[in-house]
Amino acid sequence: MPGRRSQRPVCLLIFCAWPGEQKKMKKLRIVKIGGQVIDQKQALQRFLQDFARLPDKKILVHGGGKKASALLERLAIEPRMVDGRRITDEETLEIVQMVYAGLINKDIVAALQSCKCRALGLSGADLDLIRAVKREAGSIDYGFAGDVRAIDSHMIGQLLNLGITAVFCSLSHDGNGQILNTNADTIATELAIALSLYYEVELIFCFEKNGVLRDMQDACSVIPTLTMTAYQQLRKEKIISSGMIPKIDNAFRALNKGVKYIYITQFNQISAFTGENGTAGTKIGAES
Amino acid sequence: MPGRRSQRPVCLLIFCAWPGEQKKMKKLRIVKIGGQVIDQKQALQRFLQDFARLPDKKILVHGGGKKASALLERLAIEPRMVDGRRITDEETLEIVQMVYAGLINKDIVAALQSCKCRALGLSGADLDLIRAVKREAGSIDYGFAGDVRAIDSHMIGQLLNLGITAVFCSLSHDGNGQILNTNADTIATELAIALSLYYEVELIFCFEKNGVLRDMQDACSVIPTLTMTAYQQLRKEKIISSGMIPKIDNAFRALNKGVKYIYITQFNQISAFTGENGTAGTKIGAES
Repeated sequence: MPGRRSQRPVCLLIFCAWPGEQKKMKKLRIVKIGGQVIDQKQALQRFLQDFARLPDKKILVHGGGKKASALLERLAIEPRMVDGRRITDEETLEIVQMVYAGLINKDIVAALQSCKCRALGLSGADLDLIRAVKREAGSIDYGFAGDVRAIDSHMIGQLLNLGITAVFCSLSHDGNGQILNTNADTIATELAIALSLYYEVELIFCFEKNGVLRDMQDACSVIPTLTMTAYQQLRKEKIISSGMIPKIDNAFRALNKGVKYIYITQFNQISAFTGENGTAGTKIGAES
Repeated sequence: MPGRRSQRPVCLLIFCAWPGEQKKMKKLRIVKIGGQVIDQKQALQRFLQDFARLPDKKILVHGGGKKASALLERLAIEPRMVDGRRITDEETLEIVQMVYAGLINKDIVAALQSCKCRALGLSGADLDLIRAVKREAGSIDYGFAGDVRAIDSHMIGQLLNLGITAVFCSLSHDGNGQILNTNADTIATELAIALSLYYEVELIFCFEKNGVLRDMQDACSVIPTLTMTAYQQLRKEKIISSGMIPKIDNAFRALNKGVKYIYITQFNQISAFTGENGTAGTKIGAES
Protein backbone atom coordinates (compact mmCIF):
# COMPACT_ATOMS: atom_id res chain seq x y z
CA MET A 1 0.00 0.00 0.00
CA PRO A 2 2.26 2.83 -1.24
CA GLY A 3 -0.29 5.49 -0.29
CA ARG A 4 -0.05 4.71 3.42
CA ARG A 5 3.71 4.62 3.50
CA SER A 6 4.05 8.04 1.91
CA GLN A 7 2.10 9.64 4.77
CA ARG A 8 4.88 9.13 7.30
CA PRO A 9 7.35 11.81 6.06
CA VAL A 10 4.50 14.33 6.10
CA CYS A 11 3.99 13.69 9.83
CA LEU A 12 7.69 14.18 10.43
CA LEU A 13 7.61 17.52 8.61
CA ILE A 14 4.83 18.70 10.87
CA PHE A 15 6.87 17.86 13.99
CA CYS A 16 9.93 19.61 12.59
CA ALA A 17 8.00 22.80 11.81
CA TRP A 18 8.79 24.45 15.17
CA PRO A 19 12.55 24.59 15.40
CA GLY A 20 12.27 27.12 18.25
CA GLU A 21 10.41 24.54 20.31
CA GLN A 22 12.89 21.80 19.47
CA LYS A 23 16.01 23.79 20.18
CA LYS A 24 14.95 25.06 23.61
CA MET A 25 17.38 23.37 25.93
CA LYS A 26 17.16 22.94 29.66
CA LYS A 27 19.33 25.15 31.80
CA LEU A 28 22.37 23.68 33.57
CA ARG A 29 24.51 25.64 36.01
CA ILE A 30 28.11 24.57 36.52
CA VAL A 31 29.66 26.29 39.53
CA LYS A 32 33.35 26.10 40.32
CA ILE A 33 34.70 26.94 43.76
CA GLY A 34 38.31 27.11 44.78
CA GLY A 35 40.69 29.01 46.98
CA GLN A 36 40.00 30.11 50.55
CA VAL A 37 36.33 29.09 50.77
CA ILE A 38 37.35 25.41 50.69
CA ASP A 39 39.37 25.88 53.89
CA GLN A 40 36.85 28.00 55.81
CA LYS A 41 34.25 25.70 57.34
CA GLN A 42 31.55 28.31 58.02
CA ALA A 43 32.00 30.18 54.72
CA LEU A 44 31.84 26.85 52.86
CA GLN A 45 28.67 25.84 54.72
CA ARG A 46 27.00 29.17 53.79
CA PHE A 47 28.09 28.79 50.18
CA LEU A 48 26.71 25.23 50.03
CA GLN A 49 23.37 26.37 51.49
CA ASP A 50 23.14 29.02 48.73
CA PHE A 51 24.28 26.54 46.06
CA ALA A 52 21.66 23.99 47.19
CA ARG A 53 18.93 26.60 46.59
CA LEU A 54 19.89 27.20 42.92
CA PRO A 55 17.04 26.01 40.71
CA ASP A 56 17.43 23.81 37.61
CA LYS A 57 20.05 21.14 37.11
CA LYS A 58 23.45 21.89 38.59
CA ILE A 59 27.01 20.64 38.95
CA LEU A 60 29.65 21.72 41.47
CA VAL A 61 33.37 21.52 40.74
CA HIS A 62 35.77 22.11 43.61
CA GLY A 63 39.47 22.71 43.92
CA GLY A 64 41.69 21.56 46.72
CA GLY A 65 42.32 24.58 48.90
CA LYS A 66 45.39 24.44 51.11
CA LYS A 67 44.68 21.11 52.81
CA ALA A 68 46.77 19.03 50.41
CA SER A 69 49.77 21.36 50.84
CA ALA A 70 49.34 21.26 54.62
CA LEU A 71 49.29 17.46 54.66
CA LEU A 72 52.32 17.25 52.35
CA GLU A 73 54.18 19.56 54.70
CA ARG A 74 53.11 17.56 57.76
CA LEU A 75 54.42 14.41 56.10
CA ALA A 76 57.64 16.24 55.19
CA ILE A 77 57.19 15.46 51.48
CA GLU A 78 59.53 17.81 49.65
CA PRO A 79 57.89 19.72 46.80
CA ARG A 80 59.34 19.15 43.32
CA MET A 81 59.04 22.34 41.30
CA VAL A 82 59.38 23.07 37.56
CA ASP A 83 58.98 26.66 36.32
CA GLY A 84 57.60 27.64 39.72
CA ARG A 85 54.85 25.01 39.56
CA ARG A 86 54.57 22.03 41.87
CA ILE A 87 54.98 18.69 40.09
CA THR A 88 52.53 15.91 40.95
CA ASP A 89 54.91 13.02 41.62
CA GLU A 90 53.60 9.65 42.86
CA GLU A 91 53.73 10.54 46.53
CA THR A 92 52.08 13.92 45.94
CA LEU A 93 49.34 12.37 43.79
CA GLU A 94 48.45 9.98 46.61
CA ILE A 95 47.98 12.89 49.03
CA VAL A 96 46.09 15.00 46.45
CA GLN A 97 43.79 12.04 45.69
CA MET A 98 43.08 11.49 49.40
CA VAL A 99 42.41 15.15 50.16
CA TYR A 100 40.41 16.02 47.01
CA ALA A 101 38.32 12.85 46.52
CA GLY A 102 38.17 11.65 50.14
CA LEU A 103 38.21 14.57 52.52
CA ILE A 104 36.91 17.66 50.68
CA ASN A 105 34.57 15.90 48.23
CA LYS A 106 32.82 13.77 50.86
CA ASP A 107 32.59 16.65 53.36
CA ILE A 108 30.89 18.76 50.66
CA VAL A 109 28.59 15.89 49.67
CA ALA A 110 27.56 15.24 53.31
CA ALA A 111 26.97 18.98 53.87
CA LEU A 112 24.80 19.18 50.71
CA GLN A 113 22.65 16.24 51.90
CA SER A 114 21.91 18.25 55.06
CA CYS A 115 20.66 21.04 52.71
CA LYS A 116 18.33 18.54 50.95
CA CYS A 117 20.50 18.55 47.83
CA ARG A 118 20.99 15.06 46.31
CA ALA A 119 24.71 15.29 45.80
CA LEU A 120 26.94 12.62 44.26
CA GLY A 121 30.68 13.00 44.71
CA LEU A 122 32.69 12.17 41.59
CA SER A 123 36.20 11.99 40.27
CA GLY A 124 36.88 11.70 36.57
CA ALA A 125 37.59 7.97 37.08
CA ASP A 126 34.04 7.31 38.32
CA LEU A 127 31.93 5.91 35.46
CA ASP A 128 34.84 6.79 33.15
CA LEU A 129 33.42 10.33 33.08
CA ILE A 130 36.62 12.32 32.46
CA ARG A 131 39.31 10.59 30.43
CA ALA A 132 42.68 12.36 30.19
CA VAL A 133 46.22 11.75 28.98
CA LYS A 134 49.31 12.17 31.11
CA ARG A 135 50.97 15.39 30.05
CA GLU A 136 54.23 14.82 28.18
CA ALA A 137 56.25 17.67 26.70
CA GLY A 138 59.76 16.99 25.54
CA SER A 139 62.22 16.81 28.36
CA ILE A 140 59.96 18.22 31.07
CA ASP A 141 58.32 15.69 33.38
CA TYR A 142 55.00 17.15 34.53
CA GLY A 143 54.31 14.13 36.76
CA PHE A 144 50.75 12.83 37.03
CA ALA A 145 49.09 15.85 35.40
CA GLY A 146 46.18 15.00 33.10
CA ASP A 147 45.05 16.85 29.97
CA VAL A 148 41.35 16.17 29.37
CA ARG A 149 40.56 14.23 26.19
CA ALA A 150 36.97 12.96 26.57
CA ILE A 151 33.93 13.61 28.75
CA ASP A 152 30.96 11.23 28.89
CA SER A 153 28.28 13.91 28.72
CA HIS A 154 25.62 11.29 27.94
CA MET A 155 26.18 9.50 31.26
CA ILE A 156 26.35 12.83 33.14
CA GLY A 157 23.01 13.70 31.52
CA GLN A 158 21.54 10.40 32.77
CA LEU A 159 22.65 11.21 36.31
CA LEU A 160 21.22 14.75 36.08
CA ASN A 161 17.93 13.28 34.84
CA LEU A 162 17.72 11.23 38.06
CA GLY A 163 17.67 14.55 39.96
CA ILE A 164 21.32 14.15 40.97
CA THR A 165 23.67 17.08 41.62
CA ALA A 166 27.15 16.01 40.54
CA VAL A 167 30.05 17.22 42.70
CA PHE A 168 33.37 16.85 40.89
CA CYS A 169 36.79 17.02 42.45
CA SER A 170 39.65 17.91 40.14
CA LEU A 171 40.88 14.41 39.29
CA SER A 172 40.75 12.66 35.91
CA HIS A 173 42.07 9.25 34.83
CA ASP A 174 43.87 7.71 31.86
CA GLY A 175 41.59 4.69 31.26
CA ASN A 176 44.38 2.31 32.27
CA GLY A 177 43.91 2.53 36.01
CA GLN A 178 45.91 5.70 36.64
CA ILE A 179 44.35 8.69 38.43
CA LEU A 180 45.61 12.06 37.15
CA ASN A 181 45.58 15.57 38.62
CA THR A 182 43.76 18.15 36.49
CA ASN A 183 43.18 21.84 37.26
CA ALA A 184 39.67 22.45 38.65
CA ASP A 185 39.01 25.47 36.36
CA THR A 186 39.85 23.21 33.40
CA ILE A 187 37.53 20.43 34.63
CA ALA A 188 34.68 22.97 35.00
CA THR A 189 35.38 24.43 31.54
CA GLU A 190 35.59 21.06 29.80
CA LEU A 191 32.37 19.87 31.50
CA ALA A 192 30.63 23.10 30.41
CA ILE A 193 31.78 22.71 26.79
CA ALA A 194 30.82 19.02 26.59
CA LEU A 195 27.40 19.55 28.20
CA SER A 196 26.57 22.53 25.96
CA LEU A 197 25.51 19.95 23.39
CA TYR A 198 22.51 19.08 25.57
CA TYR A 199 21.97 22.05 27.86
CA GLU A 200 21.97 25.83 27.97
CA VAL A 201 25.02 25.99 30.24
CA GLU A 202 25.75 28.81 32.67
CA LEU A 203 29.33 28.47 33.94
CA ILE A 204 30.11 30.37 37.14
CA PHE A 205 33.66 30.63 38.47
CA CYS A 206 33.60 31.58 42.17
CA PHE A 207 36.61 32.95 44.00
CA GLU A 208 37.55 35.57 46.64
CA LYS A 209 37.15 38.79 44.63
CA ASN A 210 33.85 40.35 43.55
CA GLY A 211 34.68 39.69 39.90
CA VAL A 212 37.35 40.86 37.44
CA LEU A 213 38.55 44.14 38.98
CA ARG A 214 39.78 47.22 37.13
CA ASP A 215 41.73 48.16 40.26
CA MET A 216 42.93 45.32 42.51
CA GLN A 217 42.82 47.69 45.53
CA ASP A 218 39.19 48.64 44.92
CA ALA A 219 36.70 45.80 45.54
CA CYS A 220 33.98 47.91 43.87
CA SER A 221 35.82 48.26 40.54
CA VAL A 222 34.20 45.14 39.05
CA ILE A 223 34.09 45.10 35.24
CA PRO A 224 30.44 44.13 34.58
CA THR A 225 31.01 42.69 31.08
CA LEU A 226 34.36 41.70 29.64
CA THR A 227 34.62 41.25 25.87
CA MET A 228 37.70 39.77 24.18
CA THR A 229 38.67 43.21 22.78
CA ALA A 230 38.42 44.82 26.23
CA TYR A 231 40.33 41.89 27.80
CA GLN A 232 43.19 42.18 25.31
CA GLN A 233 43.38 45.93 25.96
CA LEU A 234 43.39 45.43 29.75
CA ARG A 235 46.13 42.79 29.47
CA LYS A 236 48.21 45.15 27.36
CA GLU A 237 47.79 47.82 30.04
CA LYS A 238 48.68 45.20 32.72
CA ILE A 239 45.43 45.96 34.54
CA ILE A 240 44.43 42.27 34.68
CA SER A 241 46.46 40.45 37.33
CA SER A 242 48.51 37.47 36.16
CA GLY A 243 46.60 35.07 38.43
CA MET A 244 43.36 35.93 36.63
CA ILE A 245 44.68 35.27 33.12
CA PRO A 246 44.26 31.44 33.01
CA LYS A 247 40.77 31.79 34.53
CA ILE A 248 39.69 34.36 31.91
CA ASP A 249 41.37 32.40 29.08
CA ASN A 250 39.39 29.33 30.18
CA ALA A 251 36.21 31.43 30.20
CA PHE A 252 36.71 32.73 26.66
CA ARG A 253 37.54 29.23 25.44
CA ALA A 254 34.23 28.01 26.88
CA LEU A 255 32.36 30.95 25.31
CA ASN A 256 33.85 30.22 21.89
CA LYS A 257 32.88 26.55 22.19
CA GLY A 258 29.17 27.02 22.86
CA VAL A 259 28.81 27.74 26.60
CA LYS A 260 25.98 30.25 26.78
CA TYR A 261 26.76 32.37 29.87
CA ILE A 262 29.96 32.68 31.88
CA TYR A 263 30.49 34.64 35.08
CA ILE A 264 33.44 35.25 37.36
CA THR A 265 32.18 36.20 40.80
CA GLN A 266 32.64 35.95 44.56
CA PHE A 267 31.58 32.72 46.28
CA ASN A 268 29.22 34.53 48.66
CA GLN A 269 27.30 36.06 45.73
CA ILE A 270 26.07 32.76 44.32
CA SER A 271 22.57 33.38 45.75
CA ALA A 272 22.20 36.19 43.17
CA PHE A 273 21.88 33.46 40.52
CA THR A 274 18.80 31.92 42.17
CA GLY A 275 16.37 34.27 40.41
CA GLU A 276 15.41 33.86 36.75
CA ASN A 277 17.84 36.52 35.43
CA GLY A 278 19.93 37.24 38.51
CA THR A 279 23.70 37.49 38.13
CA ALA A 280 26.73 38.91 39.93
CA GLY A 281 30.36 39.70 39.19
CA THR A 282 31.86 39.89 35.72
CA LYS A 283 30.08 38.47 32.69
CA ILE A 284 32.42 37.14 30.04
CA GLY A 285 30.72 38.49 26.95
CA ALA A 286 30.83 37.97 23.21
CA GLU A 287 31.54 41.02 21.04
CA SER A 288 28.24 42.80 20.35
CA MET B 1 -20.79 -0.74 26.64
CA PRO B 2 -20.73 -2.71 29.89
CA GLY B 3 -19.69 -5.91 28.11
CA ARG B 4 -16.36 -4.44 27.09
CA ARG B 5 -15.57 -3.01 30.47
CA SER B 6 -16.13 -6.30 32.24
CA GLN B 7 -13.42 -7.92 30.13
CA ARG B 8 -10.60 -6.02 31.82
CA PRO B 9 -10.54 -7.82 35.20
CA VAL B 10 -10.45 -11.10 33.33
CA CYS B 11 -7.27 -10.03 31.57
CA LEU B 12 -5.73 -9.09 34.92
CA LEU B 13 -6.52 -12.50 36.32
CA ILE B 14 -4.75 -14.12 33.41
CA PHE B 15 -1.61 -12.02 34.06
CA CYS B 16 -1.69 -12.91 37.76
CA ALA B 17 -2.03 -16.60 37.08
CA TRP B 18 1.76 -17.21 36.95
CA PRO B 19 3.07 -16.06 40.29
CA GLY B 20 6.32 -17.90 39.59
CA GLU B 21 6.89 -15.71 36.58
CA GLN B 22 6.06 -12.52 38.45
CA LYS B 23 8.24 -13.23 41.47
CA LYS B 24 11.37 -14.10 39.55
CA MET B 25 13.81 -11.43 40.57
CA LYS B 26 17.03 -10.40 38.88
CA LYS B 27 20.25 -11.62 40.44
CA LEU B 28 22.51 -9.17 42.26
CA ARG B 29 25.93 -10.09 43.62
CA ILE B 30 27.33 -8.10 46.53
CA VAL B 31 31.01 -8.86 47.08
CA LYS B 32 32.92 -7.65 50.12
CA ILE B 33 36.72 -7.52 50.17
CA GLY B 34 38.90 -6.61 53.09
CA GLY B 35 42.14 -7.49 54.75
CA GLN B 36 45.41 -8.10 52.95
CA VAL B 37 44.17 -7.99 49.35
CA ILE B 38 43.51 -4.24 49.69
CA ASP B 39 47.20 -3.65 50.39
CA GLN B 40 48.64 -5.97 47.73
CA LYS B 41 48.59 -4.16 44.39
CA GLN B 42 48.97 -7.20 42.12
CA ALA B 43 46.57 -9.44 44.08
CA LEU B 44 44.00 -6.61 44.09
CA GLN B 45 44.39 -6.11 40.34
CA ARG B 46 43.80 -9.85 39.73
CA PHE B 47 40.79 -9.83 42.02
CA LEU B 48 39.32 -6.79 40.22
CA GLN B 49 39.80 -8.47 36.82
CA ASP B 50 37.88 -11.51 38.11
CA PHE B 51 35.22 -9.32 39.74
CA ALA B 52 34.75 -7.34 36.49
CA ARG B 53 33.93 -10.62 34.68
CA LEU B 54 31.07 -11.56 37.04
CA PRO B 55 27.82 -11.49 35.09
CA ASP B 56 24.58 -9.82 36.24
CA LYS B 57 24.34 -6.71 38.38
CA LYS B 58 27.00 -6.35 41.04
CA ILE B 59 28.20 -4.23 43.94
CA LEU B 60 31.64 -4.18 45.56
CA VAL B 61 32.17 -3.18 49.20
CA HIS B 62 35.74 -2.68 50.38
CA GLY B 63 37.41 -2.28 53.74
CA GLY B 64 40.41 -0.14 54.51
CA GLY B 65 43.35 -2.50 54.77
CA LYS B 66 46.34 -1.24 56.71
CA LYS B 67 46.83 2.05 54.85
CA ALA B 68 44.81 4.14 57.32
CA SER B 69 46.78 2.73 60.27
CA ALA B 70 50.07 3.35 58.45
CA LEU B 71 49.15 6.98 57.73
CA LEU B 72 47.99 7.54 61.33
CA GLU B 73 51.32 6.18 62.53
CA ARG B 74 53.25 8.33 60.06
CA LEU B 75 51.38 11.40 61.34
CA ALA B 76 52.08 10.29 64.93
CA ILE B 77 48.38 10.32 65.79
CA GLU B 78 48.07 8.36 69.03
CA PRO B 79 45.40 5.63 68.94
CA ARG B 80 42.57 5.96 71.46
CA MET B 81 41.44 2.50 72.52
CA VAL B 82 38.32 1.30 74.37
CA ASP B 83 37.95 -2.45 75.12
CA GLY B 84 40.83 -3.15 72.73
CA ARG B 85 39.11 -1.38 69.85
CA ARG B 86 40.38 1.77 68.18
CA ILE B 87 38.09 4.77 68.65
CA THR B 88 37.37 6.96 65.62
CA ASP B 89 38.04 10.42 67.05
CA GLU B 90 37.89 13.52 64.81
CA GLU B 91 41.51 13.32 63.68
CA THR B 92 41.27 9.57 62.98
CA LEU B 93 38.01 10.01 61.04
CA GLU B 94 39.69 12.57 58.75
CA ILE B 95 42.45 10.07 57.91
CA VAL B 96 40.01 7.16 57.51
CA GLN B 97 37.82 9.29 55.20
CA MET B 98 40.81 10.25 53.06
CA VAL B 99 42.19 6.72 52.78
CA TYR B 100 38.87 4.87 52.29
CA ALA B 101 36.95 7.29 50.04
CA GLY B 102 39.89 9.02 48.34
CA LEU B 103 42.80 6.64 47.95
CA ILE B 104 41.45 3.06 47.99
CA ASN B 105 38.00 3.74 46.50
CA LYS B 106 39.28 5.78 43.55
CA ASP B 107 42.20 3.40 42.87
CA ILE B 108 39.70 0.51 42.71
CA VAL B 109 37.33 2.51 40.49
CA ALA B 110 40.12 3.50 38.08
CA ALA B 111 41.35 -0.12 37.94
CA LEU B 112 37.81 -1.38 37.20
CA GLN B 113 37.43 1.08 34.30
CA SER B 114 40.55 -0.47 32.76
CA CYS B 115 38.70 -3.84 32.99
CA LYS B 116 35.70 -2.32 31.13
CA CYS B 117 33.59 -2.32 34.29
CA ARG B 118 31.53 0.85 34.71
CA ALA B 119 32.36 1.48 38.34
CA LEU B 120 31.03 4.32 40.50
CA GLY B 121 32.79 4.97 43.80
CA LEU B 122 30.41 5.72 46.65
CA SER B 123 30.36 6.55 50.34
CA GLY B 124 27.13 6.36 52.31
CA ALA B 125 26.92 10.18 52.13
CA ASP B 126 26.70 10.13 48.33
CA LEU B 127 23.05 10.47 47.26
CA ASP B 128 22.13 9.95 50.95
CA LEU B 129 22.46 6.22 50.26
CA ILE B 130 23.45 5.00 53.74
CA ARG B 131 22.09 6.96 56.67
CA ALA B 132 23.43 6.08 60.12
CA VAL B 133 23.34 7.35 63.70
CA LYS B 134 26.42 8.07 65.77
CA ARG B 135 26.78 5.21 68.24
CA GLU B 136 26.02 6.25 71.81
CA ALA B 137 26.08 3.75 74.66
CA GLY B 138 25.97 5.07 78.18
CA SER B 139 29.30 6.38 79.36
CA ILE B 140 31.38 4.93 76.49
CA ASP B 141 32.32 7.33 73.70
CA TYR B 142 32.66 5.31 70.51
CA GLY B 143 33.70 8.40 68.53
CA PHE B 144 32.45 8.79 64.96
CA ALA B 145 31.16 5.23 64.57
CA GLY B 146 27.89 4.93 62.66
CA ASP B 147 25.12 2.35 63.11
CA VAL B 148 23.19 1.98 59.85
CA ARG B 149 19.55 3.12 60.01
CA ALA B 150 18.39 3.50 56.39
CA ILE B 151 19.50 2.49 52.91
CA ASP B 152 18.06 4.06 49.76
CA SER B 153 17.66 0.83 47.84
CA HIS B 154 15.42 2.52 45.25
CA MET B 155 18.19 4.93 44.21
CA ILE B 156 20.78 2.11 44.22
CA GLY B 157 18.40 0.19 41.93
CA GLN B 158 18.23 3.18 39.57
CA LEU B 159 22.03 3.26 39.38
CA LEU B 160 22.22 -0.51 38.75
CA ASN B 161 19.62 -0.11 35.99
CA LEU B 162 21.97 2.32 34.24
CA GLY B 163 24.51 -0.52 34.02
CA ILE B 164 26.54 0.91 36.89
CA THR B 165 28.64 -1.20 39.28
CA ALA B 166 28.55 0.51 42.68
CA VAL B 167 31.79 0.44 44.69
CA PHE B 168 31.15 1.30 48.34
CA CYS B 169 33.77 2.25 50.89
CA SER B 170 32.84 1.71 54.53
CA LEU B 171 31.61 5.21 55.38
CA SER B 172 28.07 6.28 56.24
CA HIS B 173 26.68 9.70 57.28
CA ASP B 174 24.19 11.10 59.78
CA GLY B 175 22.15 13.32 57.43
CA ASN B 176 23.41 16.44 59.19
CA GLY B 177 26.72 16.76 57.38
CA GLN B 178 28.72 14.31 59.49
CA ILE B 179 30.57 11.39 57.90
CA LEU B 180 30.66 8.27 60.10
CA ASN B 181 32.85 5.17 60.11
CA THR B 182 30.96 1.88 59.68
CA ASN B 183 32.36 -1.64 59.49
CA ALA B 184 32.61 -2.87 55.87
CA ASP B 185 31.05 -6.29 56.66
CA THR B 186 28.09 -4.43 58.16
CA ILE B 187 27.75 -2.15 55.11
CA ALA B 188 27.76 -5.21 52.80
CA THR B 189 25.20 -7.01 55.00
CA GLU B 190 22.86 -4.02 55.27
CA LEU B 191 23.03 -3.41 51.50
CA ALA B 192 22.26 -7.10 50.88
CA ILE B 193 19.26 -7.05 53.23
CA ALA B 194 17.85 -3.80 51.81
CA LEU B 195 18.30 -4.88 48.18
CA SER B 196 16.72 -8.32 48.79
CA LEU B 197 13.40 -6.52 48.35
CA TYR B 198 14.16 -6.08 44.66
CA TYR B 199 16.80 -8.66 43.79
CA GLU B 200 17.82 -12.25 44.38
CA VAL B 201 20.93 -11.29 46.33
CA GLU B 202 24.09 -13.39 46.56
CA LEU B 203 26.35 -11.98 49.27
CA ILE B 204 30.00 -13.04 49.08
CA PHE B 205 32.46 -12.20 51.85
CA CYS B 206 36.03 -12.50 50.55
CA PHE B 207 39.05 -12.76 52.83
CA GLU B 208 42.41 -14.58 53.12
CA LYS B 209 41.22 -18.09 54.07
CA ASN B 210 39.52 -20.57 51.74
CA GLY B 211 36.32 -20.36 53.79
CA VAL B 212 35.27 -21.22 57.33
CA LEU B 213 37.88 -23.79 58.40
CA ARG B 214 37.36 -26.75 60.73
CA ASP B 215 41.08 -26.63 61.49
CA MET B 216 42.83 -23.24 61.25
CA GLN B 217 46.12 -25.01 60.42
CA ASP B 218 44.60 -26.92 57.49
CA ALA B 219 43.64 -24.76 54.50
CA CYS B 220 41.74 -27.71 53.02
CA SER B 221 39.41 -28.15 56.02
CA VAL B 222 36.75 -25.83 54.56
CA ILE B 223 33.24 -26.43 55.90
CA PRO B 224 31.16 -26.53 52.68
CA THR B 225 27.82 -25.61 54.28
CA LEU B 226 27.39 -24.07 57.71
CA THR B 227 23.92 -24.19 59.30
CA MET B 228 23.04 -22.32 62.48
CA THR B 229 22.93 -25.59 64.47
CA ALA B 230 26.39 -26.60 63.23
CA TYR B 231 27.72 -23.07 63.88
CA GLN B 232 26.47 -23.09 67.47
CA GLN B 233 28.05 -26.49 68.04
CA LEU B 234 31.39 -25.39 66.52
CA ARG B 235 31.38 -22.24 68.67
CA LYS B 236 30.73 -24.35 71.77
CA GLU B 237 33.69 -26.55 70.80
CA LYS B 238 35.78 -23.37 70.17
CA ILE B 239 36.55 -24.59 66.64
CA ILE B 240 35.44 -21.28 65.06
CA SER B 241 38.08 -18.59 65.63
CA SER B 242 36.97 -15.43 67.44
CA GLY B 243 37.82 -13.23 64.42
CA MET B 244 35.30 -15.16 62.28
CA ILE B 245 32.41 -14.79 64.71
CA PRO B 246 31.23 -11.26 63.74
CA LYS B 247 31.51 -12.21 60.03
CA ILE B 248 29.41 -15.36 60.46
CA ASP B 249 26.92 -13.56 62.74
CA ASN B 250 26.50 -10.92 60.00
CA ALA B 251 25.99 -13.70 57.45
CA PHE B 252 23.24 -15.43 59.47
CA ARG B 253 21.55 -12.07 60.10
CA ALA B 254 21.47 -11.50 56.33
CA LEU B 255 20.14 -15.02 55.71
CA ASN B 256 17.34 -14.52 58.24
CA LYS B 257 16.38 -11.22 56.62
CA GLY B 258 15.87 -12.46 53.08
CA VAL B 259 19.32 -12.62 51.46
CA LYS B 260 19.16 -15.69 49.24
CA TYR B 261 22.75 -17.01 49.14
CA ILE B 262 25.72 -16.18 51.35
CA TYR B 263 29.31 -17.38 50.93
CA ILE B 264 32.52 -16.85 52.85
CA THR B 265 35.46 -17.49 50.55
CA GLN B 266 38.95 -16.48 49.50
CA PHE B 267 39.38 -13.37 47.34
CA ASN B 268 41.19 -15.27 44.57
CA GLN B 269 38.27 -17.70 44.22
CA ILE B 270 35.76 -15.10 43.07
CA SER B 271 36.04 -16.29 39.46
CA ALA B 272 34.27 -19.53 40.55
CA PHE B 273 31.07 -17.46 40.83
CA THR B 274 31.16 -16.46 37.13
CA GLY B 275 29.30 -19.60 36.00
CA GLU B 276 25.56 -20.03 36.47
CA ASN B 277 25.83 -22.20 39.61
CA GLY B 278 29.50 -21.85 40.44
CA THR B 279 30.50 -21.25 44.05
CA ALA B 280 33.49 -21.55 46.37
CA GLY B 281 34.25 -21.54 50.09
CA THR B 282 31.64 -21.94 52.81
CA LYS B 283 27.94 -21.53 52.10
CA ILE B 284 25.98 -20.13 55.02
CA GLY B 285 22.91 -22.32 54.85
CA ALA B 286 19.43 -22.47 56.28
CA GLU B 287 18.43 -25.57 58.26
CA SER B 288 17.14 -28.16 55.84
